[in-house]
Amino acid sequence: MSQLLPQALLTAIDEIGKLPGVGARTAERYAYYLLRANQSSNEKLARAITALGSGVSYCPKTFALVDADQEISPLYTDPSRDKTLVAVVEEPLDIIALERTGQFRGTYHVLGGAISPIDGIGPEQLHIPELLNRIAEDTVEELIIATNSSVEGESTALFLQRQIEEQGISIKMSRLARGLPVGVDLEYADQITLSHALEGRRIL
Amino acid sequence: MSQLLPQALLTAIDEIGKLPGVGARTAERYAYYLLRANQSSNEKLARAITALGSGVSYCPKTFALVDADQEISPLYTDPSRDKTLVAVVEEPLDIIALERTGQFRGTYHVLGGAISPIDGIGPEQLHIPELLNRIAEDTVEELIIATNSSVEGESTALFLQRQIEEQGISIKMSRLARGLPVGVDLEYADQITLSHALEGRRIL
Repeated sequence: MSQLLPQALLTAIDEIGKLPGVGARTAERYAYYLLRANQSSNEKLARAITALGSGVSYCPKTFALVDADQEISPLYTDPSRDKTLVAVVEEPLDIIALERTGQFRGTYHVLGGAISPIDGIGPEQLHIPELLNRIAEDTVEELIIATNSSVEGESTALFLQRQIEEQGISIKMSRLARGLPVGVDLEYADQITLSHALEGRRIL
Repeated sequence: MSQLLPQALLTAIDEIGKLPGVGARTAERYAYYLLRANQSSNEKLARAITALGSGVSYCPKTFALVDADQEISPLYTDPSRDKTLVAVVEEPLDIIALERTGQFRGTYHVLGGAISPIDGIGPEQLHIPELLNRIAEDTVEELIIATNSSVEGESTALFLQRQIEEQGISIKMSRLARGLPVGVDLEYADQITLSHALEGRRIL
């Protein structure tokens, strides 16, 4: 079978196909869309992609994403935010999800992942020492361990809890509630979620 | 709410979100992936996107996509392909789908869309005159009208059939068979598909 598509399109399909969760068909669709889009909008996209590396850095305090010319995250420096209440998350984008609730007025700490022996990620690769420093410096009173409810997230939460207890740090620690998500019927809920919902039931 | 993400990341999310079918969450996921990817692979992606415009052109005969320095599509110039058998498709990528079957040894003609009054696409925007030219030039014997089985695809097929008949061109015309796709249970097939499957049943 001879080459069916122009090389420039094949290269674009190939490069786009490296994005997470993008299969061959989706990559073709995106590339074909870009092929028909105007050149200036494609150049804007290309510039945005190349500018990512130099335009973004990590806050050395919270490890949230910040502009490259910024030092500390505004989510930390904002005086209206409670530094004694810290939500510990796996990834920087988890902050966005929590901020969207509009319910949290504390600060954040990004671990930079979760403990996952299969992926070769051990606790020493996470920003745990920096968290322990913050607990002391900011006299943190409560830690909301908001790692995912996956196996890795749970292990990380447990590891963190033990680490803090072993160091003799006395602090309130909590996990996000688990139960039925809004809009899901009882009959369609999985067994584990339903067990958590039963266990965490609230007296009316 | 202050700006939660670095400007460079927001710009990338915004630009990526213009791709077809990419919502805010997906755009965030792609941008965050690119943020952590290495700079050289991002530059390759950016170059591939900007090179699309100048690297690809349309074959003036079949309207398939070709390299910018190529004149006529190799799918047309290849002497082993039967020029008297033409598959008429809506979009260039439809050719790939048909080629993947390995069953077709004719040539292609890309209409460049389908008749869709809602989207303001009339027959005058499709490559129909060029098709009529090819029918005469290449003494085409059979036309497989392989437009989609959507309302627009069906209207386009019907329009094409009438146009050719009105011009007094005597030629064999066919449509791709419609029926049950492989792997779909009878009980899950929709009514229209099942009607087509009944209508087009084959005697054993």
